[in-house]
Amino acid sequence: MIRRLCILGIGLIGGSLALALKQSGGVGEIVGYEQDSVRRSKALALGIVDRIESSLEEALKDADVVVLAVPLSAMEVLFQEMASSLKLGTVVTDVGSVKDSVVTAARARLGDNITYFVPGHPIAGAEKNGPEAATADLFFLHKVILTPLSENCASAVKVVRAMWRQVGAEVIETSASYHDKMLAGTSHLPHVLAYALVDLLTNLGETQEIFQFAAGGFRDFSRTASSDPIVWRDICLANREPLLDLLEQFRAELHRISEAILYSDEAKLVEIFTRAKAARDAHYKV
Amino acid sequence: MIRRLCILGIGLIGGSLALALKQSGGVGEIVGYEQDSVRRSKALALGIVDRIESSLEEALKDADVVVLAVPLSAMEVLFQEMASSLKLGTVVTDVGSVKDSVVTAARARLGDNITYFVPGHPIAGAEKNGPEAATADLFFLHKVILTPLSENCASAVKVVRAMWRQVGAEVIETSASYHDKMLAGTSHLPHVLAYALVDLLTNLGETQEIFQFAAGGFRDFSRTASSDPIVWRDICLANREPLLDLLEQFRAELHRISEAILYSDEAKLVEIFTRAKAARDAHYKV
Repeated sequence: MIRRLCILGIGLIGGSLALALKQSGGVGEIVGYEQDSVRRSKALALGIVDRIESSLEEALKDADVVVLAVPLSAMEVLFQEMASSLKLGTVVTDVGSVKDSVVTAARARLGDNITYFVPGHPIAGAEKNGPEAATADLFFLHKVILTPLSENCASAVKVVRAMWRQVGAEVIETSASYHDKMLAGTSHLPHVLAYALVDLLTNLGETQEIFQFAAGGFRDFSRTASSDPIVWRDICLANREPLLDLLEQFRAELHRISEAILYSDEAKLVEIFTRAKAARDAHYKV
Repeated sequence: MIRRLCILGIGLIGGSLALALKQSGGVGEIVGYEQDSVRRSKALALGIVDRIESSLEEALKDADVVVLAVPLSAMEVLFQEMASSLKLGTVVTDVGSVKDSVVTAARARLGDNITYFVPGHPIAGAEKNGPEAATADLFFLHKVILTPLSENCASAVKVVRAMWRQVGAEVIETSASYHDKMLAGTSHLPHVLAYALVDLLTNLGETQEIFQFAAGGFRDFSRTASSDPIVWRDICLANREPLLDLLEQFRAELHRISEAILYSDEAKLVEIFTRAKAARDAHYKV
């Protein structure tokens, strides 16, 4: 049970965490911090938080746990601004989609409070955003990855782990760099591919004309291209090295497939497609 | 109303067309032709066809309309084998995912019967296949693209159009080469990208380990990688030029995005992602 929780940023993720913790009875009071006045009003009107502050100092006062649920590009400034108001011993965590860059920023800005900063990333989301998109079941049966630091004290990790379990999530622990490499493959690269494909199609002709030839497979494939461009710009830049590395490997893989098509290398095409199908079918039913 | 329909190949598409036409009362008798004995038994047991033949000549006898629902790589041989048994005036159509290669094969093999061959492609399918996957509603509210030939007589086109409308499909007409270019973008390239991505991930490490980091977006994105490798080998090779051209353009687009990430060109990333999001959001709600 967290007595007082402070959530910095009341969007889809911050708002959903607040709703989920309230519903599960896992928290006493939830204080929100939000710079956007429209979101402040919505967060209160929707009953997402008990109190909302536009002053970071006010928001942090007497918090037991602080969750940074802001875009990646806002993390470092926020660490810097909060460092002076943060009581030593307050547990801090974040929900950023990239971990190495957040860890670097936290180490640079949090001083001794780094002991209580446990980096986290809930593998959940939606193409919608804002507090109005928040739902209490967003994390239920979803994975949350924590990447504890060598500096962390065990009790801080325990508090963050318990918070996510309280809302029905499955908590996994790994290193920040392993997280970033895996997520580059399962999330960041697929998003880039979907954006790149739809962008390419807009150059082929009238999109309305093109999309009438599209089936359900294309709708599914391109769904992630409806995600927030700013959020994904931030993720691409924050996870630059692993993503660039994979992009290069992916372009090489496409080159191999192109050569196989060009030279009618039937066996090579079947080999690649079969390996991919087997790997996917082993994990997903549909 | 088609008095006697002959469907060559009773898999997902051929079987679904048979079920849909039966259910709608748009056909008198349905005769199936299938080389696979297991499929022959299933097609009869599932009530998909009224009669099933392993002899092409028997199957074609007195048919008013013939539908080729076989893999692309089987089309040309079938055109050749059927040419001698085909009564002049019998309307023929196909369901191939690529049209130029089918048209070339038909022109080479059908002789005078080319007047009655109306190429077609229902934009519907599933990752499953075989007669057991067939459903009567597969084409309902789906698009069917016909690519009539300059040689076609108008009445043949009318018969094929009416057949698809009978099962609830929306019929669009375009040229074979335009169809192939559009489908390369909305279907063939996305399939290749999904196969390539999953194959690449299998090289990153243990797939079970990797997939636990995957969210719903990845499940959607990779769904087409569960498609039949043989079918997709055939499609890639049959639509070689448009697909290779797009693959090259796509690799160039990825290179542009990689450069933007490398040089932190925030504006370029936002520009590409925003254009893609706008195009997709204009067409799809989710």
